[in-house]
This record gives sequence, C-alpha cells and structure tokens, in this order.
Amino acid sequence: MISVEEALQTVLNSYQDFGVEEIPFIKSVGRILKEEIFADRDFPPFNRVSMDGIAIDYSAFTSRLRSKRPLSFKIEGIQAAGSEQITLKNTENCIEVMTGAVLPNNANTVIRYEDVTIENGVATINIDAINDGQNVHSKGKDGQKGDVLIEENKIISAAEIGVLATVGKSTVKVAKQSKVMIVSTGDELVGVDEIPLEHQIRRSNVFTLVSLLERLNIPSETAHITDDKPILKSKIENYLQEYDVLLFSGAVSKGKYDFLPEVFDELGVEKLFHKVAQRPGKPFWFGRKSFLNENNLNSDNQTNDKYKKNTIVFGFPGNPISTFVNCVAYFYPWYYKSVDIKAETETAILNADVSFKPNLTYFLQVKLSSRFGHLIATPIIGNGSGDLASLVKTDAFIQLPNDKTEFKKGEVFPIIRYR
Amino acid sequence: MISVEEALQTVLNSYQDFGVEEIPFIKSVGRILKEEIFADRDFPPFNRVSMDGIAIDYSAFTSRLRSKRPLSFKIEGIQAAGSEQITLKNTENCIEVMTGAVLPNNANTVIRYEDVTIENGVATINIDAINDGQNVHSKGKDGQKGDVLIEENKIISAAEIGVLATVGKSTVKVAKQSKVMIVSTGDELVGVDEIPLEHQIRRSNVFTLVSLLERLNIPSETAHITDDKPILKSKIENYLQEYDVLLFSGAVSKGKYDFLPEVFDELGVEKLFHKVAQRPGKPFWFGRKSFLNENNLNSDNQTNDKYKKNTIVFGFPGNPISTFVNCVAYFYPWYYKSVDIKAETETAILNADVSFKPNLTYFLQVKLSSRFGHLIATPIIGNGSGDLASLVKTDAFIQLPNDKTEFKKGEVFPIIRYR
Repeated sequence: MISVEEALQTVLNSYQDFGVEEIPFIKSVGRILKEEIFADRDFPPFNRVSMDGIAIDYSAFTSRLRSKRPLSFKIEGIQAAGSEQITLKNTENCIEVMTGAVLPNNANTVIRYEDVTIENGVATINIDAINDGQNVHSKGKDGQKGDVLIEENKIISAAEIGVLATVGKSTVKVAKQSKVMIVSTGDELVGVDEIPLEHQIRRSNVFTLVSLLERLNIPSETAHITDDKPILKSKIENYLQEYDVLLFSGAVSKGKYDFLPEVFDELGVEKLFHKVAQRPGKPFWFGRKSFLNENNLNSDNQTNDKYKKNTIVFGFPGNPISTFVNCVAYFYPWYYKSVDIKAETETAILNADVSFKPNLTYFLQVKLSSRFGHLIATPIIGNGSGDLASLVKTDAFIQLPNDKTEFKKGEVFPIIRYR
Repeated sequence: MISVEEALQTVLNSYQDFGVEEIPFIKSVGRILKEEIFADRDFPPFNRVSMDGIAIDYSAFTSRLRSKRPLSFKIEGIQAAGSEQITLKNTENCIEVMTGAVLPNNANTVIRYEDVTIENGVATINIDAINDGQNVHSKGKDGQKGDVLIEENKIISAAEIGVLATVGKSTVKVAKQSKVMIVSTGDELVGVDEIPLEHQIRRSNVFTLVSLLERLNIPSETAHITDDKPILKSKIENYLQEYDVLLFSGAVSKGKYDFLPEVFDELGVEKLFHKVAQRPGKPFWFGRKSFLNENNLNSDNQTNDKYKKNTIVFGFPGNPISTFVNCVAYFYPWYYKSVDIKAETETAILNADVSFKPNLTYFLQVKLSSRFGHLIATPIIGNGSGDLASLVKTDAFIQLPNDKTEFKKGEVFPIIRYR
C-alpha cells in the first residue's frame, strides 16, 4: 500500500498529451488554449474617443483661458463611431465626437457633454479644469500589434472569448480531449429506469463520473459489464484499444468476483499501484497499457516511436464516495497535468476538531463558506463510503494528512472542491 | 443617478419566474432543481455488506472466544452482490460475503478477508477484536424511505446526479431558462471573421455575454443592429415580444447615436433606472416592458392575470469592461433571484492599498489566490473600461464602496468571481 502522495505522483507521471484541435472560438469556453493569442493591431487601433462630447485642440483652450476669452468653440461637424476619421480644419473650432469614434485629425482632447453647453452650433465649455489629452484612449495604450494578449495553456473563459473575438480568432487551437470510457461492474446494479429487486440497487457511479468529467468539458461514454470474467476480459480488451482512458467503478477489492486486477494483468495492463493509504477509496487500482508501435520496432528507444499509444486505467473502488473522491483527487490532477495547466492548491480553515486514528490520509467531506476573506470548512460526517446522499450537503473534501491523528479547529489544510 | 445598492435592489425586485420543465437527469448538471427528491426506499435498502469477507452470528464468535475454542467457522456458501438473500442455516458456520451483497439471514457481523485464513472450506478468524455488527451498513442508516435527500432549489452537480440515479429519477424538474437575446449596437463594429478598417473594431461584447450566460447554463441568441433609429425600433419591438430578457451592449450613454433610451421609451419599456454611481459601467439602463393580458382585462388586479408577460431589458454600456461587470453584478443576481437560489456573498482580502476619489462604487479587477485559508485579492489596474485584455489577467471584481476613498491592504470586501 502506498501513500496518497506517492500515488498522486505516479498518476501525474502517467500524464498523456492528446494533441491539439482547432474549434470555433465560441465553443471553446472551458477548453485549454493551445496557442498564444497576439494583438493583430494596436489596442486601441486608433486614438479612441472614450466619452461623448466635443474634441478640441488643447492649445486653443489654454490660450483662451489665459487671455480670458470665452471658452466657446464653433462646431465643425460630427465624428461618429464607425466613421472614417475627419479633420478639424480650424483648430479654433471643435468637432462633436462619440464614444468609440476615431479622434479627429488636429484634435487631441475631449470634453464630455456634461461639461459643455451647446447653442446655435457653438459649444461652450463650462469648466476650467481640462487636461491635455483627456478622454482619449491612445492608440496602442492597452497593447501593441504583436503583443501576446493571452498566453498558451490558459483555461478559456468569457474574458478570453472577448479577446479572441476582438483579434478575429474565429477558430482557436485547444487541447484535444481524451476518449474516455466509464465502466461499472457489479451484478447488484440495475438501470436508472428499472425498479430494483430487494437485493439490487440502481447504477449511479457512472453518471456521477460522467458529470464530474463534464466539469472539465470531457465527454465520455458509459458501459456496464456483468461480473463474468471472460465477458469482462473480452470487452475490456476492446476498450483498451478504442479509448485513451478507462474509468472503472467497482471490482478492484478482495471479493470473489472482483476480477478486474486479474483481467488487467492478463490483458497486459501494467499495474502502477493497487491500494492507497487513504479513506475512503483505499482499494484504488491504477495502471497503463502500452501498445507497441509495430511499424517502428527497429527504431531507437524513444517513447514516441516505440509506442503507438498508452491507455490509462483508473480502477476506482465501487462505493459511491470512494469513486467520487478518487476521481477528483487523482483523475482531475492527471487531466490538468496532461493539458499542461497549473491548478493552484486551495486551502481552507477547519471549523471543528477532528480525530482520525488510522494511519491513512483522510478525505473528509466539508461544507465551505466565505467569512471575512477566510474560507471555512465545516466537516459533515456521513455514514461512510456508501453514503452518497451526504455529498449533496457538502462542497469539497478536506485532505487531512496521515502523520497526525488530531486535527484542530482553526488549522489549515488543502481542499478539493467538487462544485 | 442611483447607488449600486439601490440599482441592485431594483433589479432584484424585477425577478421573473419562468416556470418549470422536466428534462433527462443526465442533462441537468448546472440547472436548478425544482422538486424535492425523496428516498424511494431505505438507504441502504437492505443490511448491506460493506467489506469482502465472511458473515457470522456474533454470539457464536463470543461464545468460542469465552470458552477458548478455535475461532473456526465452516463455510456454508457464498452471498454475492446482486444475489437474493441466502440463510446461514447453522449459526455455528459462516457464509462468504461480498461488498454490496445483502447480509445473509441469521448473520449479523462481517469479518474482512484480511483478518481470516481459509483452508479446506473452513474460515479461521485471526484476531480477537471483533465488534457486534461490524462491516454491515444497516438498512435505512443513511435515510428512510420518504426522506428528502435533495431540497428544492439546489444547483445540480455531480453529487446530485448520483442521488437522482439512485432513486430512479431518470427525468427531473428544473427551472426553465428565460429566452435571452443579446444585441450589440454601434456602427464601428464588424464581424469576427472580417478585417476591420482603420476606424472599425470587431464585435466582442455579445460573445463575452453569451459565454457569461453559458456559465449559468442559459442559452442565448445574438444580433447586431445598426445605429439607425427606425431600424432599432422595429427590431426591438419584435424582440420585446419574442424574448423574456434583452441584453444590450452600447448606445445608452450621451452620444448623438445613443438611441436606445428614446427607443425604449417610445416602445413603452418602463425605465426603472438609468445611470448608477459606479465605475466602470455607469450609464447602465434598466427597465421592463409589461404586456397586458387582453383576455383578462376585467379580472382582479393580480399580476398573474393582468399581465401576459414581462420582458426585462438590461442596457449595458458598450465599453467591454462595463458590459462585463454589469452582467456579473446585476444580471447574475437577477437570475439567482429568479430561479430562487441563494448565492452566498464571497469576500476577499485586499492585497494592496487602493485610492479612489470619485463618489462612486469602484469595481476593481483582482487576481485571486488562496493562502493559508485566506482568499487574497491582488488588484490589477487596467487602462480603463476599454481594456478588455486586462480581464484575461484577473479572476474577479472586488467591490469597493463609495463611502470611502482609501482602501487599505488587509481590508475585506465583497468580490464577484467571473471564472
């Protein structure tokens, strides 16, 4: 049995690069950007008017102020947003300008309508405090043509969508998602639409896993296989070829019908570990099947040439909370590493004393709340790893290390959010 | 000009109930549950074996221990998960049992395989410390038939999906989403696929808004209308009838072509406010168009009868950050209130001194980080409300109130996350 830290390191070392695909930008929210996004022009691309009002030559204003002449400017015309730049012909005059418009030629300063009176085609400025260049968003102030606006490996959100639109990236390169199959085993399981007999229950873990993967924008397929070794073996043999990742729920513990470890072994799936010193989720099985690239058997020893592909196998224990916690504690970090994003570790403050004697890392369910900038984690003790309904009352797991048995209110530990 | 607090209250008072629809449970992640979910049977539905091992009658164990006889039990049979309950015929014997199986009749305690040696059909227990009823997850321990497992008005996540599957809710009632149209105006705007002329820029705000609504699982449509008053009026007249919510970006300020406030007025959209004491996003226009229910003109004065429907109009200012902040600061709370969920206010600790003189609420962009259970908000000063690219570097807005001008490092304020 290995520690949670060793298990996680092994999982991370098995990260896989699934390459890049190009998709419409508007479909890319939640995906991982796989190119740098450059400014295609200066931002703003022209000296941009940022207030509705009048545009003047600042020196005309100051000379009138100094000589105590009226602060009145004849209106030469209107510069609308979306119109070609016009020219202030006489710098003693002004031009009405709209937010988003190009600043007219020969003008450099904008006074907003609120500070101006317009009468008979003449605009009179009602205040003395005008700054040279005010209300003009200068060409290139936010970025120069060629600047990197979004770095590679960023999760695309609404903010990035706006930038992609602005620079004309109607399609964008993102990390390709792995092809995932989620398999349940266990002859006690029936479909969601069925009425279970006394000794049966409905399938739920596969749907939980589908939803947890959906949070990462990873589509997945599901299957159920009966607890029959030859059937398991032949189906899994196909899945190993066809998919990049297999997630199993159940059949990895010590039961008479827990055939998966044997089947994996017989199918040449390399066991990287089985059993982790944690609660819940201890009987977790993790391995990898490497398919040799037969066309390149004589080439040098580089992984890219030697292996056609790897299929990663996560064998989660079948109890609902065990499957759930292992998905967020291992599959999530594996995914982040595979797409090359850094997921910041979040920490929270324990809101009650907790005692936990076994020499295991304890993933304890907590309800989170924000108080005065502090993230508070209140433990909700369920009825063990079978108590799926308890997850409804909580938001995250707090990870209590195995080198202690007493955890005090006020102490800080890492958390893994799942909503 | 009203305060942010008054504006928000007005927006919340205009919440709308869009009713309920029933959808496949597996499509319901992110939607708002609109029914209570009950346990359809006890959980677990039977005394459930929670470890692979042997099941015995505890009194047979204690009597042997007392009389110092060997702790050996003849194996009568196997109780597999998914099989009908069998009976321990002789309580001096045992039955092999698998995780998830029904506890056999006449047995009450399970000893895991790790603590047992099996030879020639006899299981010998290797330890003395056995508790009565151990490793049995008792019928009804997590919940009784008829218990509420999920309350109404909960956001459905992976945890709820598992419970829905377990109780056989293959379809589920959720809040119906409003029909939303997002409209950009501004003649300077061209499509994402187009090459803008010198004085033009590409449309981006509508796509940002689409993505921000997608976070709430609200689908939306988009349109662009030219800055031409008759065209604006005729299109908006149709949209008011056809949609529940209209989001506009631009044309609500003081510009010569900012026709929207006039058009709304002429179309009978009641202005609830125009301009909020905030930066950015000040020229925000908000209103409502009520359509009388002509079939019920003689009925009593109840809203349900008198009005066929209301259309809510959010007129956001056209600068990218203004549109963005107003969507998360007003539309999001309006949606939460409309679907009847409580969004907890999150707070963070300011990581730098900030000075802001105007008598306005300041929505300042911040980068968030988690340190020792504290949520730290580091201000990133952009180049004003036009600087869309600055949103890429930040995660949230921190809301600095207008009754102060100096905000010190270490002080705590509310935040609005957008990623």
